[in-house]
Amino acid sequence: MDFNTVEIKAGVIADNDKVAEENRRLMNHSNTLFINLMSSPGGGKTTTLVRTIEALKDRYAIGVMEADVDSDVDAAAVTAAGAKAVQLHTGGACHMDAGMTRTGLDEFDLTGLDIVFLENVGNLVCPAEFNVGADKRVCILSVPEGDDKPLKYPLIFTVSDLLLINKIDTKEVFDFSTDRCKENCRKLNPSMEFIEISSLTGENFDEWIAWLTRAAEEKKAK
Amino acid sequence: MDFNTVEIKAGVIADNDKVAEENRRLMNHSNTLFINLMSSPGGGKTTTLVRTIEALKDRYAIGVMEADVDSDVDAAAVTAAGAKAVQLHTGGACHMDAGMTRTGLDEFDLTGLDIVFLENVGNLVCPAEFNVGADKRVCILSVPEGDDKPLKYPLIFTVSDLLLINKIDTKEVFDFSTDRCKENCRKLNPSMEFIEISSLTGENFDEWIAWLTRAAEEKKAK
Repeated sequence: MDFNTVEIKAGVIADNDKVAEENRRLMNHSNTLFINLMSSPGGGKTTTLVRTIEALKDRYAIGVMEADVDSDVDAAAVTAAGAKAVQLHTGGACHMDAGMTRTGLDEFDLTGLDIVFLENVGNLVCPAEFNVGADKRVCILSVPEGDDKPLKYPLIFTVSDLLLINKIDTKEVFDFSTDRCKENCRKLNPSMEFIEISSLTGENFDEWIAWLTRAAEEKKAK
Repeated sequence: MDFNTVEIKAGVIADNDKVAEENRRLMNHSNTLFINLMSSPGGGKTTTLVRTIEALKDRYAIGVMEADVDSDVDAAAVTAAGAKAVQLHTGGACHMDAGMTRTGLDEFDLTGLDIVFLENVGNLVCPAEFNVGADKRVCILSVPEGDDKPLKYPLIFTVSDLLLINKIDTKEVFDFSTDRCKENCRKLNPSMEFIEISSLTGENFDEWIAWLTRAAEEKKAK
């Protein structure tokens, strides 16, 4: 195996923001861009990451923390794509908190990494509640899930900086309006950014890669 | 409004199984079939319920507890379809426990109801951990989510009696193998039942309605 698997436990919520701040300082020290990537199960986090790594691996050294209740398949996939990976088993926990995240970060040699992604547990509720110290929170909503999800799971759309609207290659099949989706989001989060992509076909992926490159360069320049 | 909205709070986990047993006794007393319906966000719980209510409302009196972090749209939808509904706001909680469920059940006149559904919070992780006293746990997995989800979120596929494989009208669009999905499930739960449906088009819905009718008649005969 080219990656470690670490069993972790959810900690005490009271300390979360303090540890998140420590994580943030750690990542600032190494000028590593830190992205917390969140979505529903099957929203396309891993497919998006694999394509992202393939697009950027010649330019940036990328680390991925794969948080899963169980299984190592995602860490294997991103390792094969060219990233450094650590597989985190959350022991039944439905989210990553700052302490669990720190356990993952400590597996990396951060000074050698330009970008670290946390692929959070597939869940639109709890991951939104935990600040892990990331520079950017990116949420993926896939077309089959429906444009009403911001109404049902408002917090994750409130705290995310960018919404990747994924699986746009299936727009013809589902009754999904990107306008309605964006409108639902903007009511919660007026400064939210949106990029429509298909991680399967690569449609519009350049826009996401450009967004990420800008963020990585900003972090380097800090 | 034709339904009540109740703000509820997550309780202490230690008492959960005791309260679940009380819920079970309560539902046995009125011979009401009690179904805990779980899926990811956007898996199709509400669409499935609306079509189910329309198919069975002339035969059975149906109650629905709509558990959502926020919004009342689902309770309005199932009320319009012909069910008694109560909207439960979970106050940020990502699942329903037995005590929260009891708060919902107490909103109904149970002796007048043949079937009660709990539409759980859209989440494949936490709802699986909480016994709420239901007769049957039914999980919906939709084709766009992928046939690998039992590997990633094993508990919910282990504890569910029936898996509804939904959105089969989109099978041509996604790389989803029902055989692979069932095989992944059976490793966790050899006695799991499977029904493939499209809640949008109604394809194969008769099989689900027959399953539900059998369960309701069994409960009546107890």
